[in-house]
Amino acid sequence: MAAIEGIFVPNIVPYDAHGRIAEAELRYIIRWLGSKDVTGFYPNGSMGEFIRLSYEERKRVLKIVAEEAGGKPILAGAAEPNVDLVLEMCGYCADLGCRAVSITGPYYFKLTQESIEAYFRELAAKSPIDIVIYNIPAFANEISVQVLKRLALDCPRIVGTKDTSRDMPRFQSVLHEIKSQRPDFSVLIGWEELLCASLFMGGDGGTLSSCGVVPEVIMKIYREARAGNWNEAKRVQFKLLDLFSLMVNAPNFPEGFRSGYELRGFKVGHARFPLSEEDHVIIETMRARLACVLAEAGFTEAALSCRPIKSATSRNIAAADVEAIVRAVISKMK
Amino acid sequence: MAAIEGIFVPNIVPYDAHGRIAEAELRYIIRWLGSKDVTGFYPNGSMGEFIRLSYEERKRVLKIVAEEAGGKPILAGAAEPNVDLVLEMCGYCADLGCRAVSITGPYYFKLTQESIEAYFRELAAKSPIDIVIYNIPAFANEISVQVLKRLALDCPRIVGTKDTSRDMPRFQSVLHEIKSQRPDFSVLIGWEELLCASLFMGGDGGTLSSCGVVPEVIMKIYREARAGNWNEAKRVQFKLLDLFSLMVNAPNFPEGFRSGYELRGFKVGHARFPLSEEDHVIIETMRARLACVLAEAGFTEAALSCRPIKSATSRNIAAADVEAIVRAVISKMK
Amino acid sequence: MAAIEGIFVPNIVPYDAHGRIAEAELRYIIRWLGSKDVTGFYPNGSMGEFIRLSYEERKRVLKIVAEEAGGKPILAGAAEPNVDLVLEMCGYCADLGCRAVSITGPYYFKLTQESIEAYFRELAAKSPIDIVIYNIPAFANEISVQVLKRLALDCPRIVGTKDTSRDMPRFQSVLHEIKSQRPDFSVLIGWEELLCASLFMGGDGGTLSSCGVVPEVIMKIYREARAGNWNEAKRVQFKLLDLFSLMVNAPNFPEGFRSGYELRGFKVGHARFPLSEEDHVIIETMRARLACVLAEAGFTEAALSCRPIKSATSRNIAAADVEAIVRAVISKMK
Amino acid sequence: MAAIEGIFVPNIVPYDAHGRIAEAELRYIIRWLGSKDVTGFYPNGSMGEFIRLSYEERKRVLKIVAEEAGGKPILAGAAEPNVDLVLEMCGYCADLGCRAVSITGPYYFKLTQESIEAYFRELAAKSPIDIVIYNIPAFANEISVQVLKRLALDCPRIVGTKDTSRDMPRFQSVLHEIKSQRPDFSVLIGWEELLCASLFMGGDGGTLSSCGVVPEVIMKIYREARAGNWNEAKRVQFKLLDLFSLMVNAPNFPEGFRSGYELRGFKVGHARFPLSEEDHVIIETMRARLACVLAEAGFTEAALSCRPIKSATSRNIAAADVEAIVRAVISKMK
Repeated sequence: MAAIEGIFVPNIVPYDAHGRIAEAELRYIIRWLGSKDVTGFYPNGSMGEFIRLSYEERKRVLKIVAEEAGGKPILAGAAEPNVDLVLEMCGYCADLGCRAVSITGPYYFKLTQESIEAYFRELAAKSPIDIVIYNIPAFANEISVQVLKRLALDCPRIVGTKDTSRDMPRFQSVLHEIKSQRPDFSVLIGWEELLCASLFMGGDGGTLSSCGVVPEVIMKIYREARAGNWNEAKRVQFKLLDLFSLMVNAPNFPEGFRSGYELRGFKVGHARFPLSEEDHVIIETMRARLACVLAEAGFTEAALSCRPIKSATSRNIAAADVEAIVRAVISKMK
Repeated sequence: MAAIEGIFVPNIVPYDAHGRIAEAELRYIIRWLGSKDVTGFYPNGSMGEFIRLSYEERKRVLKIVAEEAGGKPILAGAAEPNVDLVLEMCGYCADLGCRAVSITGPYYFKLTQESIEAYFRELAAKSPIDIVIYNIPAFANEISVQVLKRLALDCPRIVGTKDTSRDMPRFQSVLHEIKSQRPDFSVLIGWEELLCASLFMGGDGGTLSSCGVVPEVIMKIYREARAGNWNEAKRVQFKLLDLFSLMVNAPNFPEGFRSGYELRGFKVGHARFPLSEEDHVIIETMRARLACVLAEAGFTEAALSCRPIKSATSRNIAAADVEAIVRAVISKMK
Repeated sequence: MAAIEGIFVPNIVPYDAHGRIAEAELRYIIRWLGSKDVTGFYPNGSMGEFIRLSYEERKRVLKIVAEEAGGKPILAGAAEPNVDLVLEMCGYCADLGCRAVSITGPYYFKLTQESIEAYFRELAAKSPIDIVIYNIPAFANEISVQVLKRLALDCPRIVGTKDTSRDMPRFQSVLHEIKSQRPDFSVLIGWEELLCASLFMGGDGGTLSSCGVVPEVIMKIYREARAGNWNEAKRVQFKLLDLFSLMVNAPNFPEGFRSGYELRGFKVGHARFPLSEEDHVIIETMRARLACVLAEAGFTEAALSCRPIKSATSRNIAAADVEAIVRAVISKMK
Repeated sequence: MAAIEGIFVPNIVPYDAHGRIAEAELRYIIRWLGSKDVTGFYPNGSMGEFIRLSYEERKRVLKIVAEEAGGKPILAGAAEPNVDLVLEMCGYCADLGCRAVSITGPYYFKLTQESIEAYFRELAAKSPIDIVIYNIPAFANEISVQVLKRLALDCPRIVGTKDTSRDMPRFQSVLHEIKSQRPDFSVLIGWEELLCASLFMGGDGGTLSSCGVVPEVIMKIYREARAGNWNEAKRVQFKLLDLFSLMVNAPNFPEGFRSGYELRGFKVGHARFPLSEEDHVIIETMRARLACVLAEAGFTEAALSCRPIKSATSRNIAAADVEAIVRAVISKMK
């Protein structure tokens, strides 16, 4: 099989008024993303709140994405809570025809690197489908470059890594120590800010939450970079920073991205985790800024929600913001 | 209902050769613990690897513990992955007659304190059973004292907290800021080293993994403390430190405690997560030391496994240890 | 020489309008503290901003404290930037008749535990005065219990430790692993919240910044504890928590304690590091609350500055506070 | 004055057998580096152990470097412990004709971002020489991008930043939020692994410790990048990774770089901080590997010290290494 390459969209899960998966909207989003020429799909990742779905719901999401993918490859999150369940999910993904599964380091418990290696070796030995190792140290145990290297050089089933550590030196070490010895090993970036630099240094693509909100922007950076038009790729990359910064720094990831989808016109519903009043205020403020950035970038459907806010370098701040801020910080000060 | 007080044993889950729950052994352990006069049981906590069981397995564990508890109160872990599933589990625990559920802060995603507060408020409003808030910042989002205070003073359903942060100043703040205003609010320690000091300052008891391995020791500290025999309580507390240190510092919690159960004669089987060769070696070394500490403390069943190791302050080290160490560190150096 | 025991006050350095050491005020403070029956003095610690003084200024502070100590023992900070300078300062302290020096782990660079051990071994071999090892991991390299143990058991010159890690399990390990084998080794707490619990478990006293502000309170806890009046000791300990919490959580330690001195009537001047407008506002708010707590505790000189603030659990907040908060957070939001 | 651009070498301080600055060797090193066409010099940075020198020694180092610089620009570390001393040092550097001073965030105490901003504003208002803000969060308080932005846009005296955070997203934010608005603001990288990527994204150069050891390599990356020969720049950048990784990961920075200087033939003497036996062993092992990497890269003077070690991915390890490792880890296990 060909190496994994390109941009895979981490899929959001929209909910209906009862908190159930809004299946029709999910299908609509997948088809819309397909029409934007993304490379493939990435359901059941962090963006997809896999941890808050039931096992059956995760299977349902996969099925829907597979049905709507239109032949595009699927990289499917399979970070189930124990080896047997991971393998069961691997089988399910294989049956659906997914290209590979993506598995995070174990979460909750802290484990030694040696046992994390043993875990992935066992999965690699038994999985019926290719595996991408997903490093996301903010949420789950980090997988060291040395462990990843031994796994990559020993296990044919482990075909790549997705790195969401926002750690560029680590990304380069993976290229230098692993890809140089196994050129078909895919090294994907999972952090928007590093897309352009990672492609420049030799990366193979990425799985980037923003791609669900502005597939046009992400795919443009990717295509210009692939074509060697680095100045244009960099220009758009810098423009992406504002957009990404607003969404990723909003409280309670992935809520900032949920706002982004709404501004593009999708009905993604309320989160699966209750938002406090204070966080609602902060997210509303963020959303108004995000709308302006989107509108300015040509996504006219967002223009109506744009409420301009004074420059961050100025010491002045709009009265409306002050109120929002006060409400938001009062509980913190107490 | 009376305030929660005393020592609740966090239950281990023994597995059979196929990795399935060893139900007969679990029943046997619960009855044995009951015979040691522990106050109550605490299934589906971190010690019980709740995160690695399926939803159905967690229910099965609860049922077995309830059947064997002999009327002792049960504090049941219910940290399910979303609000609906937590509430469903709360209902199940209520039906089984559990005294309360214990719920950790959310894990994996990082959330604001305000939204964590909103989460517990929603649970408190809808749960059919009392709730104990379980603070374990090493594995899940911390719950700040200020959030805990607002919850405790506003929500009758939230009846206590279990603190596994190993943070004594925090524990005292909870006593000072919350228990002083709501005296029936239970403040339980979840860290062995602080049992004696926490009882001295005004705590109500604890949930301590060591209590499954040496219930005699933990219950003695508790009873001497309650009787005001502080010198005796402190003497045993200091003896407990060696035991606890070996078990809690072993790689891949709760593997150190699993070894402890084995040394007491139980058949707890292999972990639900693969151990590396290196970690096996380290745990075997730890186990030999643990056996000596247990044997010295009068738990004669452990004596056979005791393999003495030279003093830690000496610069010499046994040849056997060197070998074990070398094997263990080689991978790290590479 | 007798083991070090009791309460040593970490001395503030007051400044005049030109930012120079206000020598007369410093002498006045030392004499006042002496009249409150503190055990001894602790100049050139973190509270004394040793890092912001020149080498000559640190010597001058020592000389003044020695002249005003009235025969009480002095534990002198000597964390100079390299071995030669530490030893030179040790000689100076010995000549002044100090009881011992206190030396932090090295700061700025991160060092291995083994080299930190080598550093203290070299100092112990050459110092003309006893050494107390000062563990303050928030500001300088931590010194592990195992390193401390080897040093304590091998080096007669190293006579104790001061622990500001706020880590009660660590404090107990030091008692258990070191003091049990070398009973004259002094184990002092450097964190107010743990004074009572540390004395209960077997500690020898403390060096506590609050003791400069409310020597009456700290000495009462110490004396009641030593007399075995634990209920009274605990009662006052819990009262101390509010006071300490306000001072230690104020921005830019030791600014909160500086406010405390001012409320007791001393003229300590402006800090050696510029405070932002925002931090001034926050400290003023803190100071008004601190004044109330002090006044309520019977320190009537603080009453005039008391400006009551609504309860932290209430969702309301005074208009004056809102303004202060807004100004304080605006820069953060930008 | 022209914007700061290019590669500034952080200078090592060589010591003689008595631990005093080896002035002749320092002069020799500076002249040698000048002959390698580095852009300029950077004395009294972290590499120069500024924190372990006395105030007078730091001045002496500056004077020597200024005398040997041959007209090349000097960026001088001036992170003195308080505002008055920083300004005094700024005056000294101005008199010597340095191009600018470099000042870290304050160390030891933790300070708010607002007060760090006030600190730099005061320095900027009073300094007679241009200031570069040096962000090195591993050792000193981080300076947030928002604070840096306000300083850069308000203070003409603050002309650039040096970033040693190894944080590429931060580096890009500085380019995007600051340099886009003030194009003459210099953005220098202080982390070798990011040299090529930072230049590609728009950086102005760097201050890189490796440049003292292999000026040929660093200058080649810089010149190829500036000439637009990106493939060649990347090829050399990847080769640099092994070299840098060995030196930066050696215990007790900057000891790894000291070994590098020795392998190039300089007599840099022993460190200003005692090395443990264990760390000596680890550094010797590292040095043997470093020699091979240097020899392979064409620095033939290092060939004699090269002692090959088996590949890191192999599970085998040379007997000599095992011994070294054992000795190194024994103390850790105890």
